[in-house]
Amino acid sequence: FSVSSFASDTDLLNQAKNLFKPLPKVANNPENPVTQVKVKLGKMLYYDTRLSRSNIISCNSCHNLARYGVDNTPTSVGHKWAIGPRNAPTVYNAALHIAQFWDGRAKDVEEQALGPILNPIEMGMPTKERVVKVVKSIPEYVELFKKAFPNDSDPVKFENIGKAIGAFERTLMTPSRFDEFLNGNTNALTKKEKRGLKTFISVGCAGCHNGPAIGGTMFMKFGQVEEYWKETYPYVLKESPAIKVDFGRFGVTKNKADMFVFKVPSLRNIAETYPYFHDGSVWKLEDAVRIMAKTQLGKDLTDQQVEDIVAFLKSLTGKLPEDALKTPVLPPSTDKTPKPEF
Amino acid sequence: FSVSSFASDTDLLNQAKNLFKPLPKVANNPENPVTQVKVKLGKMLYYDTRLSRSNIISCNSCHNLARYGVDNTPTSVGHKWAIGPRNAPTVYNAALHIAQFWDGRAKDVEEQALGPILNPIEMGMPTKERVVKVVKSIPEYVELFKKAFPNDSDPVKFENIGKAIGAFERTLMTPSRFDEFLNGNTNALTKKEKRGLKTFISVGCAGCHNGPAIGGTMFMKFGQVEEYWKETYPYVLKESPAIKVDFGRFGVTKNKADMFVFKVPSLRNIAETYPYFHDGSVWKLEDAVRIMAKTQLGKDLTDQQVEDIVAFLKSLTGKLPEDALKTPVLPPSTDKTPKPEF
Ligand code: HEC
Ligand code: HEC
Ligand code: HEC
Ligand code: HEC
Ligand SMILES: [Ca+2]
Ligand SMILES: [Ca+2]
Repeated sequence: FSVSSFASDTDLLNQAKNLFKPLPKVANNPENPVTQVKVKLGKMLYYDTRLSRSNIISCNSCHNLARYGVDNTPTSVGHKWAIGPRNAPTVYNAALHIAQFWDGRAKDVEEQALGPILNPIEMGMPTKERVVKVVKSIPEYVELFKKAFPNDSDPVKFENIGKAIGAFERTLMTPSRFDEFLNGNTNALTKKEKRGLKTFISVGCAGCHNGPAIGGTMFMKFGQVEEYWKETYPYVLKESPAIKVDFGRFGVTKNKADMFVFKVPSLRNIAETYPYFHDGSVWKLEDAVRIMAKTQLGKDLTDQQVEDIVAFLKSLTGKLPEDALKTPVLPPSTDKTPKPEF
Repeated sequence: FSVSSFASDTDLLNQAKNLFKPLPKVANNPENPVTQVKVKLGKMLYYDTRLSRSNIISCNSCHNLARYGVDNTPTSVGHKWAIGPRNAPTVYNAALHIAQFWDGRAKDVEEQALGPILNPIEMGMPTKERVVKVVKSIPEYVELFKKAFPNDSDPVKFENIGKAIGAFERTLMTPSRFDEFLNGNTNALTKKEKRGLKTFISVGCAGCHNGPAIGGTMFMKFGQVEEYWKETYPYVLKESPAIKVDFGRFGVTKNKADMFVFKVPSLRNIAETYPYFHDGSVWKLEDAVRIMAKTQLGKDLTDQQVEDIVAFLKSLTGKLPEDALKTPVLPPSTDKTPKPEF
């Protein structure tokens, strides 16, 4: 124990506190208050394969809560084995982001949740009406919607499915040792992890990856210094479907300045949510870190720097909330429930 | 309260005790003792999608423990969206059956578990070696195999995957009010349910559906009185894939006497495991009961008889074991883990 290491730990802590924040218990949304019954209902819907046309795909199929909220495949497989164009980001801590999806095209988790249900290559439901029909046909759900939306004259409606799932997602926070550190316990990180944190800040990563989710606070171009695909394409697996160049946020805004711009992703649980980048092209965290330094900062990191940063990133692997992992027993269908279609 | 209803309740209980048995806590197998660590490992493997070629299908995909161990679709969808020929039976209480699969082609749950992993239309793994390679590439699994099979010089082998999953399945017992009844509490069933039980016995159902699982004790021809499909085909959904006549156990033994012979299925949780029969052709329990009386016993049941039997069958819906529903957090892959293939 030396005064200088004490001083530098405190310095580091103060610097970190300026850039990051400990996770809240719940990511609140005043427009959709998180209540116990809404969370209960949202969790059931999250796990319920009947929200898909085939009755075999649920949110949990692509965002497996037991695997840190992802499917660990390059790009997701959906209805009729359609292979989508992007990697599935984790739902853990996602509610904290400024917007949802890699290109930020949904405002919040409430709006986002309605997308995949109707997406023909995800859950494949043909219409909103059919989704509502499924839920209305199951008396246990009707009861829960009434309780979750007591002031709503028509509680079982499409938008409320999004609100219930969104409320559940707002509870999916995964605090880690880094939060203990931010809360003042400088011994919560090892020496190496602290060195990694220092490098993460000094090299410039924290300029983009910051806030409570260590990311999710802004949109930035992937490829600040050179086209991103020059670095990532050597990694694209031979077995992967032909990955195309992704215009990113340009597809949403049609603004040329948004070409190749993506939401800066959260780095919470990043060691568990391989493969990396919007196209799932890179499997090793070390490689992803090197590519970031190169494409975003024009820097070649030393092996030691990469190792330290990766050690720090691993300290962001958090505790998964126990309740989310307790699978809810789902109520049976009835004669009125539309039959699965393949 | 009348002496005669008391006497008849006791009679019914005694009759029932001769035909059925309460569920054991665990379905033991002396050749594969159920230990805590084996069950823990087996549960992880049961939920792990990496046992499939695509890394998106696990046992739980088709035998959803939150939906009473089934997928509630006519016939299951597997690797590359292949649609199989048979309905997925529940894994709950299955370890008690004399054999596994509709046609009994696997001896026990240990042997059974190895089938779907290599089945090209289920989990689609190309070889045993690849499955073992996946498991060996994940250090947490290697540790658990060592602990679960301490006397084995080569613990991480294909057969032991079956043993671990099998041990887990041996804990999947779902006691219901009917077990309370069998244990002597004649008030555990309502009047109607008791009338249904009486009818179930007197009409002849219990001649085939008996033992602790209310089924699973013998093989019998489906269609004792007339070809089964004459009764079931009107129910085959238009949307379903063309269902073919299924030879049943003949396919296993090549013995003509086994044509259209199937294992008599367990009726535990039957109200939850729709659709019914090996082809999943019938969605309503009432219809399945009527078809059974007709095809197996040559009888046309009255509406009252059907209603009572269904009430009794609903009393077989049991309590799902809490631990099984706590999804295990799965360890990450490593560089050595084979990548998913679609
Ligand atoms: C077939 C796979 C699949 C299914 C099913 C699916 N998702 Fe996704 N999810 C994805 C992919 C891929 C993306 C990224 C798409 C993009 O950015 O364009 C995504 C993005 C998201 C995001 C944005 C996270 C972020 O950081 O921006 C959230 C939240 C989410 N999904 C939640 C859900 C919910 C809730 C459901 C069920 C109602 C669901 N997903 C169903 C694959 C899936
Ligand atoms: C100028 C902004 C910027 C800087 C600086 C930056 N990043 Fe990123 N980072 C991004 C964006 C944008 C993405 C998403 C890229 C994509 O896949 O489209 C990303 C993605 C990542 C990913 C992959 C996340 C995932 O879920 O796939 C990792 C890991 C990462 N960054 C780490 C770092 C590290 C370490 C540094 C510093 C060496 C760094 N980043 C610097 C903007 C930045
Ligand atoms: C793609 C769907 C699918 C997957 C994945 C799958 N099963 Fe099955 N399972 C079925 C179907 C369909 C049957 C009936 C097949 C038959 O009888 O020929 C079945 C039969 C069974 C049975 C026999 C039950 C009885 O009463 O005879 C058990 C036990 C079982 N599966 C356990 C498992 C386990 C353990 C796994 C994972 C290692 C698994 N299944 C993976 C669809 C699936
Ligand atoms: C002679 C033997 C026999 C008799 C008697 C019998 N069953 Fe069955 N039962 C079977 C067989 C064999 C099957 C499996 C048929 C198939 O799908 O291939 C079956 C299937 C069922 C199923 C569907 C199970 C499932 O999981 O899909 C129900 C429900 C059922 N029987 C109820 C009854 C009732 C109620 C009676 C009396 C009215 C009865 N059974 C009489 C042999 C019998
Ligand atoms: Ca990823
Ligand atoms: Ca069934």
